[in-house]
Amino acid sequence: MSRWFLFYACWLTRSPFYDPYSFESKIFETQEVTFADTKEIIVKGGRDLFPLLPKAFEGIEKIGVIGWGSQAPAQAQNLKDSLKEVGADITVSIGLREGSSSFEEAKDCGFSEEDGTLGEMFSVIKESDLVVLLISDAAQAKLYKEIFAAMKPGATLGLSHGFLLGHLDSIGEKFPENMDVIAVCPKGMGPSVRRLYEQGKDVNGAGINSSFAVHQDVSGKATELALGWGIALGSPFMFETSLRSEYCSDIYGERGILLGAVHGIVESLYRRYQRQGMSPEQAFLESSESITGNIVKIISTKGIKAVYESLDGDDKETFQKAYSASYKPAKEILQEIYDEVSSGNEIRTVIMHGARIDKYPVGKIDGTDTWKVGEKVRAERDEDKIPLNPFTAGVYVATMMAQIDVLLEEGHPYSEVVNESVIEAVDSLCPYMHYRGVAFMVDNCSFTAKTGSRKWAPRFDYILDQLAYTAVDNGAPVNEQLIADFEKHSVHQAVEECCKLRPAVDISLFAETSTKEIVIQ
Amino acid sequence: MSRWFLFYACWLTRSPFYDPYSFESKIFETQEVTFADTKEIIVKGGRDLFPLLPKAFEGIEKIGVIGWGSQAPAQAQNLKDSLKEVGADITVSIGLREGSSSFEEAKDCGFSEEDGTLGEMFSVIKESDLVVLLISDAAQAKLYKEIFAAMKPGATLGLSHGFLLGHLDSIGEKFPENMDVIAVCPKGMGPSVRRLYEQGKDVNGAGINSSFAVHQDVSGKATELALGWGIALGSPFMFETSLRSEYCSDIYGERGILLGAVHGIVESLYRRYQRQGMSPEQAFLESSESITGNIVKIISTKGIKAVYESLDGDDKETFQKAYSASYKPAKEILQEIYDEVSSGNEIRTVIMHGARIDKYPVGKIDGTDTWKVGEKVRAERDEDKIPLNPFTAGVYVATMMAQIDVLLEEGHPYSEVVNESVIEAVDSLCPYMHYRGVAFMVDNCSFTAKTGSRKWAPRFDYILDQLAYTAVDNGAPVNEQLIADFEKHSVHQAVEECCKLRPAVDISLFAETSTKEIVIQ
Repeated sequence: MSRWFLFYACWLTRSPFYDPYSFESKIFETQEVTFADTKEIIVKGGRDLFPLLPKAFEGIEKIGVIGWGSQAPAQAQNLKDSLKEVGADITVSIGLREGSSSFEEAKDCGFSEEDGTLGEMFSVIKESDLVVLLISDAAQAKLYKEIFAAMKPGATLGLSHGFLLGHLDSIGEKFPENMDVIAVCPKGMGPSVRRLYEQGKDVNGAGINSSFAVHQDVSGKATELALGWGIALGSPFMFETSLRSEYCSDIYGERGILLGAVHGIVESLYRRYQRQGMSPEQAFLESSESITGNIVKIISTKGIKAVYESLDGDDKETFQKAYSASYKPAKEILQEIYDEVSSGNEIRTVIMHGARIDKYPVGKIDGTDTWKVGEKVRAERDEDKIPLNPFTAGVYVATMMAQIDVLLEEGHPYSEVVNESVIEAVDSLCPYMHYRGVAFMVDNCSFTAKTGSRKWAPRFDYILDQLAYTAVDNGAPVNEQLIADFEKHSVHQAVEECCKLRPAVDISLFAETSTKEIVIQ
Repeated sequence: MSRWFLFYACWLTRSPFYDPYSFESKIFETQEVTFADTKEIIVKGGRDLFPLLPKAFEGIEKIGVIGWGSQAPAQAQNLKDSLKEVGADITVSIGLREGSSSFEEAKDCGFSEEDGTLGEMFSVIKESDLVVLLISDAAQAKLYKEIFAAMKPGATLGLSHGFLLGHLDSIGEKFPENMDVIAVCPKGMGPSVRRLYEQGKDVNGAGINSSFAVHQDVSGKATELALGWGIALGSPFMFETSLRSEYCSDIYGERGILLGAVHGIVESLYRRYQRQGMSPEQAFLESSESITGNIVKIISTKGIKAVYESLDGDDKETFQKAYSASYKPAKEILQEIYDEVSSGNEIRTVIMHGARIDKYPVGKIDGTDTWKVGEKVRAERDEDKIPLNPFTAGVYVATMMAQIDVLLEEGHPYSEVVNESVIEAVDSLCPYMHYRGVAFMVDNCSFTAKTGSRKWAPRFDYILDQLAYTAVDNGAPVNEQLIADFEKHSVHQAVEECCKLRPAVDISLFAETSTKEIVIQ
């Protein structure tokens, strides 16, 4: 019986993909944090821990950072700087495809072929004790065999995303058994990982949080190395996950409220408000602008429940009606996404999509009426006059809560749930949509994310239109139980706790917006 | 390496799922038919062949028809009548779930527990030499192990759909090697299979065409038995396929132009025409009504190209523009559907959806504005005044042609292509939508079909809106090559040829519309 079949059988029987999290470190101090009704072990980072890095990187003489996308420049430079600061004799080298146009950029960042810190990817892989593999999901799926074969005995494979495990599962293969496999997954795009690290030189603890996973630990040293890697990146705190939990929550999250769901919600509301008599401009203001310019800002600073609490009287009731009608239809699609991802189906879909891409390039999503009107609305925008539409808020918050509930029911830890359903949405992604529309948000993301968003956005649109809005129009009463569950939901405290652990320094997204792909973690 | 992996690998390397079709019969006369640039072997049916049935059913003493959905009552009665007419000593028995409410209906049709022609399904399976398995896809996926185990040595498994093979592939299992496995798949719903058979008593050859497949032939007699079964059902002609080709084209087709695509096309056009200033009623008339009340009627009687040829001047150019802009976006989604089905992903999706169904029942799709307006339009309908909107025609015909091209490129035989992309759409399904709206069409179909339609309809909607309509609005020129390809397409002759082979007696759908599930073949 194949490993793949066991994987699908795992879905069929709903057995958990991962064990409860608990880890120990002999080098770094761990700390217990209470997230809602559970406890998680974390490691707080900070520059004061850098002197411990040589011990964590024991046995590592060369780190090969492979690729030059969003994460690689940031991670390579942070690793290099941190290790240099404590005088560790470890080389950080960049490995690129022969003839890649990124050679020049890597040179500009201080890596060079002359001193052996820049070279063809397989040469670098062959010489490295830690291979930090940051090429795209599709490239990983294509090249994994050659990469495994090229690695020297005893070397560790480092990932920043669990996709490769998902792909191997989906074709019944696995990592070579004789190597350590670890992941450190910063919960933000690469440029922020670098900039906040630099800011952290003055403000200890500034940086991007990371999850980490120890997938194979042959040497017995994998946990320490993963923690050292994360601290060297500047992570203010690190929480444990598994590769499988990481890719399930990550691929699920971007198809849900992070990208796909918010797109579908806006399209469906934009139509609805026009049917009710609004002008296109007003309808855009009450749907898209209301979310990106108002609702997510409240969530970012005061939490999810604050959106609801800021409403009075009729508006509160409108929110309740919209929430009551939207929660279950949204959850239906979210549960479907989770099942597709956790069964391996969605990963096969991404691979098959990649195989068609020359014939069918990823198309433009913002040439339609909605986003043309959006452009006009943005041009005349007064930030202070963006409405908080209570119906829009009810739909958006219900979808976010449904996403949280699916992840919690599937056993994901709160730190992961909050990152993949709340923080990433309100602090990283919606600001992009607010700045220049849906495509600027979606298409700055990875291939896996942007094709997934295109696939699922219309499903949210249709089901909300067919089941939620019709229910409201047909006079469906408020579901008091759902509202009570929302008000006393355990996630509110967890969001608050996560916010406390976030760096004191805010990330300014737009200062560093580049044409590079932003990898959503 | 698992069988499943070979299956996915088969997709990855694009090797064909089936061999070229050719079969021989020592009992029935075969005939070569030219479909476009290929030849296919068929067997023409008819009541005059009934005297050959005893030879085809040699060794069969008891046929167990399992289930009582759309196909089972029709197939059981036709088999019983045909075999009785030629004095064959073969019993046809119905097998049902213990306590099934269908026992009464089966009794009304002349089957009874007293004479051993009606009983609990596993008792009937145990005693049958040919088990005609007509329970739902989901039930087959759930019960196949018990069914295989209950069958007696040497008995033949008969199917009317290839889904079970797809499910077995998707979990790395297979049919027991020691049994014959055949399929006869009538290209119409059960009630028509029965009624036309009855009409055929007066008009020789009336009935529903069937494809047939011989998946495993241990006895060496499987082909003759399959042909005999199809002729006993009253099929005017039978063409060969494989179980895999059958389920790929069937599951693909219903997600495409048969159900999903036509739904998405209508929604997107209904919005577009309103944006252009039409009233909701007029927009419905120019989109949905134009397709179901005009375009499909032309295709049904005069072929696909006749729609285009009936247009003049500006209308012809509007068609060309709509066709040029829609063909490729529609094909992108259709190719995605084909890949999802042929890789096994879509079948896993259906199974997973089935597992969620208690929590998330299949929702209502026609409570929205579009279909409320549609109800009003239908109430005031004048059949003679339904417009032939040339833009609508261009979009619909382009999607149909894209569906045909994907199937042909994937190597399906013309008879199957024409049935799954043209005849089924214009003669069986669109009339349902015309009669009472989209849900009446979609929700009278199998679970596999109606959940698939819900999944894919919004994808067609979004991609047409995002890529096709924007292209037209941005002044994209007519793609002369695409139009030329359409005009000289080989499928036009194949449609004509298939029409010649159709029964002389028309099926009247609405006379026999029941609350039963209609299984799309």
